[in-house]
Amino acid sequence: MAPDTVKRAVVLCSGGLDSTVAAAEARAAGYELYVLSVRYGQRHLVELAKVPEIARALGAKDSKVIDANLRVIGGSALTADLSVPKDRPAGEMARGIPVTYVPARNTIFLALALGWAEVLQADRIYIGANVLDYSGYPDCRPEFLKAFEKLAMVGTKTGIEGHAIRIEAPLLKMTKAEIIRRGVALQAPLHLTHSCYDPDETGRACGRCDSCRLRLKGFSEAGLTDPAVYVSSGSTH
Amino acid sequence: MAPDTVKRAVVLCSGGLDSTVAAAEARAAGYELYVLSVRYGQRHLVELAKVPEIARALGAKDSKVIDANLRVIGGSALTADLSVPKDRPAGEMARGIPVTYVPARNTIFLALALGWAEVLQADRIYIGANVLDYSGYPDCRPEFLKAFEKLAMVGTKTGIEGHAIRIEAPLLKMTKAEIIRRGVALQAPLHLTHSCYDPDETGRACGRCDSCRLRLKGFSEAGLTDPAVYVSSGSTH
Repeated sequence: MAPDTVKRAVVLCSGGLDSTVAAAEARAAGYELYVLSVRYGQRHLVELAKVPEIARALGAKDSKVIDANLRVIGGSALTADLSVPKDRPAGEMARGIPVTYVPARNTIFLALALGWAEVLQADRIYIGANVLDYSGYPDCRPEFLKAFEKLAMVGTKTGIEGHAIRIEAPLLKMTKAEIIRRGVALQAPLHLTHSCYDPDETGRACGRCDSCRLRLKGFSEAGLTDPAVYVSSGSTH
Repeated sequence: MAPDTVKRAVVLCSGGLDSTVAAAEARAAGYELYVLSVRYGQRHLVELAKVPEIARALGAKDSKVIDANLRVIGGSALTADLSVPKDRPAGEMARGIPVTYVPARNTIFLALALGWAEVLQADRIYIGANVLDYSGYPDCRPEFLKAFEKLAMVGTKTGIEGHAIRIEAPLLKMTKAEIIRRGVALQAPLHLTHSCYDPDETGRACGRCDSCRLRLKGFSEAGLTDPAVYVSSGSTH
């Protein structure tokens, strides 16, 4: 549906591992990449700061940041002053909806990506959503992504003209180890990615929050060494 | 679903006529009002500047502004440097999707409102969407609003716990004259509202853009005088 033969995809990228591998999947599928990241009031901007470098490494055509300050509405440990849980065993992480859940975050991110996709006449939006590690996030589930595609069809000029904008979540059912192996296979710039919910002032990962623990476990299961820098090697297992 | 007996509604308010009447409908339905406006890169912020006063006049419990700079993605006369059409007859206005269409705007606004509704445990979102005057906007149609309700059900913690967040668009099928009459009946602060796409530096409405013309026609059909201030009385017909 692009005016020429170029296939375009808007890729939501946080600077983290999953979204970077999702972007590499879009590149492997032959799309010209338009990388979108959202400054939503994350407590730490280390992750987001990596995006331009990741976009360059992936050969993206363009990279933009949208501000959408979700701190205003509160409700999450990632944007408010709730504390990020540390050292929780995997069993406990999986239970219920975590305090790091940001209300309606993926709805907001996809809505912003949809706006840009319409302007670009892109027919794909890539998102690094994953159901396995974070089953507690309602907006990472397949039924949510399907409902969003339906919304995009009826709620955009593009859609009512008969051109679908599809949501691609290639990592949806992969384990963290599978995502890491896939990233390596696709030559995704994993060394530039950052996952920690609570890095120190120099940007080093804590190694103890849920996100660090899942990442480290994934690298370990994939039989690889995580290239990220952690506060102390003692907490990197 | 609120923890007490108070019924809460998030009300999207632009400072314009329609959203102010929609907010008055929420008040009349017994809701405690949480007024949300979005600074999305409108070329003129006169309209938005009225929101706190409108919220106070309506007795709202809280009023917040979220920044979501849609200029970054471009694509609309309202956020980019395209020129706003003037002096078009009503027949021409109704044809096709206008240049003032902002890609995915209502999807983005509703997504932000959904985030706040979840935090507040509000069970309604009010929006001043209207199909008649602007039939060209895909995201003002009933099927869009239904698709968003479905998305809210599957994409939020609230929704998967079985509590629906409903989208109310009480003005959806009203003419501008009907909206104005309804606003007067509900004692909505119409004197504080602003509709112009292209006001002068002092905030006076141009009287010639599609939005001004529809508003003036509406007041005229309702047999009322528009309390807004226009650049010259010569253009207020």
